[in-house]
Amino acid sequence: MAEHIITFDNDTPPVTAQTGTLLSEVIQGAAMTLNQPCGGQGRCGRCAVRVTGGTVRSRSTLRLSAEDVAAGYVLACQAVVESDAAISIPPQEKIERLLTTDLVSAEVEVPAGYDPRKAQNVRRVTLTLPPPTMDDQTDDWNRLLTALRQQADFGTVQASLEQIQGLGGVLREGDWQVTATLDAERWDCPGCPARLIDLKPGHTASEMPLWGIAVDIGTTTVTLWLVDLLTGKVMAQVAEYNGQIARGEDVISRVIYAGKNNGAAELRDLVLTTINTLLDTACKRVQAQPADVVKVVISGNSVMMHLLLNIRADSIRLSPFVTAINDIPTLAGREVGLNTHPAATVDCLPGVASYVGADITAGVLSSGLIDTEAVTLFIDMGTNGETVLGNRDWLVTCACSAGPAFEGGGVLDGMRATKGAIEEVWINGTTFEPTFRVIGGVKPRGLCGSALIALLAEMSLTGVMDKGGHINTHRDHPRIRTGEHGPEYVVAWANETAHNRDIVITNVDIDNLIRAKAAIYAGFSVLAERVGVPLETAEQVLIGGSFGKYINVEKAVEIGLLPDMPWENFHFLGNTSVRGAYLALLDREARARIQASAARMTYIELSADNTFYDAFTSALFLPHTDLSRFPSVQAAIVS
Amino acid sequence: MAEHIITFDNDTPPVTAQTGTLLSEVIQGAAMTLNQPCGGQGRCGRCAVRVTGGTVRSRSTLRLSAEDVAAGYVLACQAVVESDAAISIPPQEKIERLLTTDLVSAEVEVPAGYDPRKAQNVRRVTLTLPPPTMDDQTDDWNRLLTALRQQADFGTVQASLEQIQGLGGVLREGDWQVTATLDAERWDCPGCPARLIDLKPGHTASEMPLWGIAVDIGTTTVTLWLVDLLTGKVMAQVAEYNGQIARGEDVISRVIYAGKNNGAAELRDLVLTTINTLLDTACKRVQAQPADVVKVVISGNSVMMHLLLNIRADSIRLSPFVTAINDIPTLAGREVGLNTHPAATVDCLPGVASYVGADITAGVLSSGLIDTEAVTLFIDMGTNGETVLGNRDWLVTCACSAGPAFEGGGVLDGMRATKGAIEEVWINGTTFEPTFRVIGGVKPRGLCGSALIALLAEMSLTGVMDKGGHINTHRDHPRIRTGEHGPEYVVAWANETAHNRDIVITNVDIDNLIRAKAAIYAGFSVLAERVGVPLETAEQVLIGGSFGKYINVEKAVEIGLLPDMPWENFHFLGNTSVRGAYLALLDREARARIQASAARMTYIELSADNTFYDAFTSALFLPHTDLSRFPSVQAAIVS
Repeated sequence: MAEHIITFDNDTPPVTAQTGTLLSEVIQGAAMTLNQPCGGQGRCGRCAVRVTGGTVRSRSTLRLSAEDVAAGYVLACQAVVESDAAISIPPQEKIERLLTTDLVSAEVEVPAGYDPRKAQNVRRVTLTLPPPTMDDQTDDWNRLLTALRQQADFGTVQASLEQIQGLGGVLREGDWQVTATLDAERWDCPGCPARLIDLKPGHTASEMPLWGIAVDIGTTTVTLWLVDLLTGKVMAQVAEYNGQIARGEDVISRVIYAGKNNGAAELRDLVLTTINTLLDTACKRVQAQPADVVKVVISGNSVMMHLLLNIRADSIRLSPFVTAINDIPTLAGREVGLNTHPAATVDCLPGVASYVGADITAGVLSSGLIDTEAVTLFIDMGTNGETVLGNRDWLVTCACSAGPAFEGGGVLDGMRATKGAIEEVWINGTTFEPTFRVIGGVKPRGLCGSALIALLAEMSLTGVMDKGGHINTHRDHPRIRTGEHGPEYVVAWANETAHNRDIVITNVDIDNLIRAKAAIYAGFSVLAERVGVPLETAEQVLIGGSFGKYINVEKAVEIGLLPDMPWENFHFLGNTSVRGAYLALLDREARARIQASAARMTYIELSADNTFYDAFTSALFLPHTDLSRFPSVQAAIVS
Repeated sequence: MAEHIITFDNDTPPVTAQTGTLLSEVIQGAAMTLNQPCGGQGRCGRCAVRVTGGTVRSRSTLRLSAEDVAAGYVLACQAVVESDAAISIPPQEKIERLLTTDLVSAEVEVPAGYDPRKAQNVRRVTLTLPPPTMDDQTDDWNRLLTALRQQADFGTVQASLEQIQGLGGVLREGDWQVTATLDAERWDCPGCPARLIDLKPGHTASEMPLWGIAVDIGTTTVTLWLVDLLTGKVMAQVAEYNGQIARGEDVISRVIYAGKNNGAAELRDLVLTTINTLLDTACKRVQAQPADVVKVVISGNSVMMHLLLNIRADSIRLSPFVTAINDIPTLAGREVGLNTHPAATVDCLPGVASYVGADITAGVLSSGLIDTEAVTLFIDMGTNGETVLGNRDWLVTCACSAGPAFEGGGVLDGMRATKGAIEEVWINGTTFEPTFRVIGGVKPRGLCGSALIALLAEMSLTGVMDKGGHINTHRDHPRIRTGEHGPEYVVAWANETAHNRDIVITNVDIDNLIRAKAAIYAGFSVLAERVGVPLETAEQVLIGGSFGKYINVEKAVEIGLLPDMPWENFHFLGNTSVRGAYLALLDREARARIQASAARMTYIELSADNTFYDAFTSALFLPHTDLSRFPSVQAAIVS
């Protein structure tokens, strides 16, 4: 096959590529980073580059305007090399740093009565061994086992080859005094021997805190809490975007990316870098060493868990949508690739199904759902819209595949809830002029989820659009117009914005948003119907997920995203996933309860459920085709 | 520090070295191989090199003659660089290839009634899984577990992360048919979950033999048997010198070498190369792949076991002589560094003490000692002279540190029992002229153990030397003379030998041999005395170790090496260590019996035992100071 020379307009040296090579691969091969939020499917348009010399063959130009195409723009993931070519790489949109205050709670309360001696399976003990003599030639390992049995009540203990290799040195360096850290009881193998995690010479190490971390791997954000296992106190909370974001914004894009070439290894490395960087940051705050962390509990959705461990995830994406494994055995820090103690116990919390993962089982525990008598609706308000209905006696769950609309995906001017995002909007019913509030108080760059909910509610209420989501283009108003993508409403004029372009919401955006809210509401309906409990009789709604924190309940009810209930029944809980991991980190009993609840949760696969399609269709209206389900909204319309 | 340039008289390019660097390190740093049988202690004289330019400072010239020193010879391990120097490397003595017939039995009998379904803990099963559907979204791992439970009766099963990573692919590639290999019952953790070793798509793999290997790591020789675990048949037997020999001939030299710089890693690599090469050779004979071997049982003395696993062995050498570990947990092929299946079960048999290792516990099983009512003396006739006295009810053991004299070490013309070694000698009582037999029927190069035993007996019997081991130099005979090392007897004249030098035995050699035989016999005496059983009442003597095969019992009794008993009471068993490993490979019950016997063996540390010194001193005479212990010899002398 012919080889071609590809040159770039930046400092990157030219590279060669064969006919037929994807331009995105050529660019990554030249060691440039290319954002591919959709995982290289040609859907997001973020990998656009300009061909300034030579020719490439382009399969798709979705998301590129006619002008862009005329100017030579192509999607790098959809264009293949045909000749020598010169490529201009536009500066790519950088993901803004998170506002850490959005993600870190002020202080986490230690569970009442926490007693590490009862709850904690990781234990540290100091031992004084009798030195060997000519009359007592017991081998080092048995000498240690005897001391563990006699001085610390450990029956049988296992060590790794690496630990045995260093054993003689440690015992003698400490002059037969040692500090041992052990995992006394493996959650996945009760009755199995205790496992030696660490052995240090002398007794001085016993004065250090016993460190553990709780980690939530979100598709968007990774959160890590550093915990003193002896007091139970969270000593540092840190969060950062998941480094995988540039390789796909949603779980499906990530699974697709993982299936390509070296994609799985790359995604694994990206999230490991994120976690290890967070670990480092957290440790620096309290002058600890990452290698002193001896216990890890990880939560996250099933795709995140598979990608972290480089487990094949294709089957999650393809019918009949099964995971490789829901309940992962205990691993060691070294195996996972964490910079903790190499033998740290790593416990990945169990999931239920492809789209109801450990983040949900952790949330079911930490939200208190499994302790309450009250019939409760628990929602992780994100892309997958995982929902659990139940109480301490029964639990049903589903994922309703809402899509990323409320996180700004598939919405022309959508963005995440970071600095520069419009987060709240009001529309004057007479003038149709909007007022808005921007995160960080700066000029706006786009619309985040809460603004989109508010816009839908306000546009519907003021008649800017009808209950079916169609913008009333017959109204003669400068903000209501027909743009490149059809009818649209202008939220901010170019001279008000950070990028000097109008910020709009289009009919296509609205359609996506209505489909998303309909999917979530239909999920609720199906769960309620399946167990024969009217949705209205749910006594409380617990909302988890960081996205949940921005929702204005009134407006979410107005558009039919949340069920119509008294506001006091709604509780926003923030990151219930990391909190569940934290509880499991402290208490093996909590860990056992998560596993037991995962085992008894009834999972309902909506894509195989006819009632879901009916419920979804009925919900494609603001708030709903059956207005009797939304009495407060009905009352407001009548008044 | 000053840097000097060291040049060589062969193709090796010059290297630089700082003042004070050991010449042996300089030479190895220049990528030349230097024999150091004594581990670099300046004892063996094998690393002699000639300094032809510049100067080096030499700490010791032991084993070099005055002429050698005058000619510029130094011991590389005892000489340090002081200036630029030119070094001449003499061609070093190569270790001859083993005569494989010496080491490989014709055919090994499979234990009567061997039934892998009862005895074998490694099992292979074929499974047919129901494919997932929208109504059955069980994760892959649980689907496999259910099939293992329902179709093969496995309760709980553990897999490694690597196996889980590949799980989805294997299940789908085989269209939900798989062949699984499992370790059903871990000897070191009864009640623990079964462990998945291998999972292959389809049912075709089930037609292959289930391969296992039994390995004996001798200080000198490594022996490997490739076994079909379903029939129990040994399908290939191979043996080769332990690659560590060039770094020390005995265990103490190896431990010393392991303590230097990168010594431990080097020794580990050397023995691994030996084992993996043997594995390859054995597999080629039966058209198997090393990666198909799923179970390994390893035997060997405690030092060999520590060095194989890179476990610190210093404490074995230093008082109070303790091992790091006697009973090593189950390992995987990958951890050990074997080219078997990476997840193969590797079971290292348990030892008892620093100088009574797994080779002895394996021998106690395979020799039948633990099954017999008869009081039995079991000897591994090698450097360490490990001895066990007992029967099925009681066992006492010791190691008597005989030294390598009977293996040719510390004997001027000593060598191992390979081609060119004189293996049998007779001396005419009138003419004092010897007759001898040479292994391989070639011109002789030296004397092996059986020849040394015969020489001692014949020289004593004919009066060439007295019962105290002193050569009668007053006899006027050309073969009796005083050489550079004192009095000596010429066994072969230069014109008869392969290297055109006289082959002699010196008074120093004889002294070493008498000390060795005295140590072994004193060991027997102490064991007998300790349990209050006269040595003479032992009903049989079982002799293991490949060295044992060459001994002439009559002559060994004549010199007082073996106790005086009817010849029919002596049984030569060959390599009892590999045979014990083979039995443990086949049968978990045999494995359990080895462990139980190791646990109940009473170890007697001779270096802490005053009676040993007395017994040793009494035995420094041919056959013994107390002639009443050797009635048959007494009778022969009288007659």
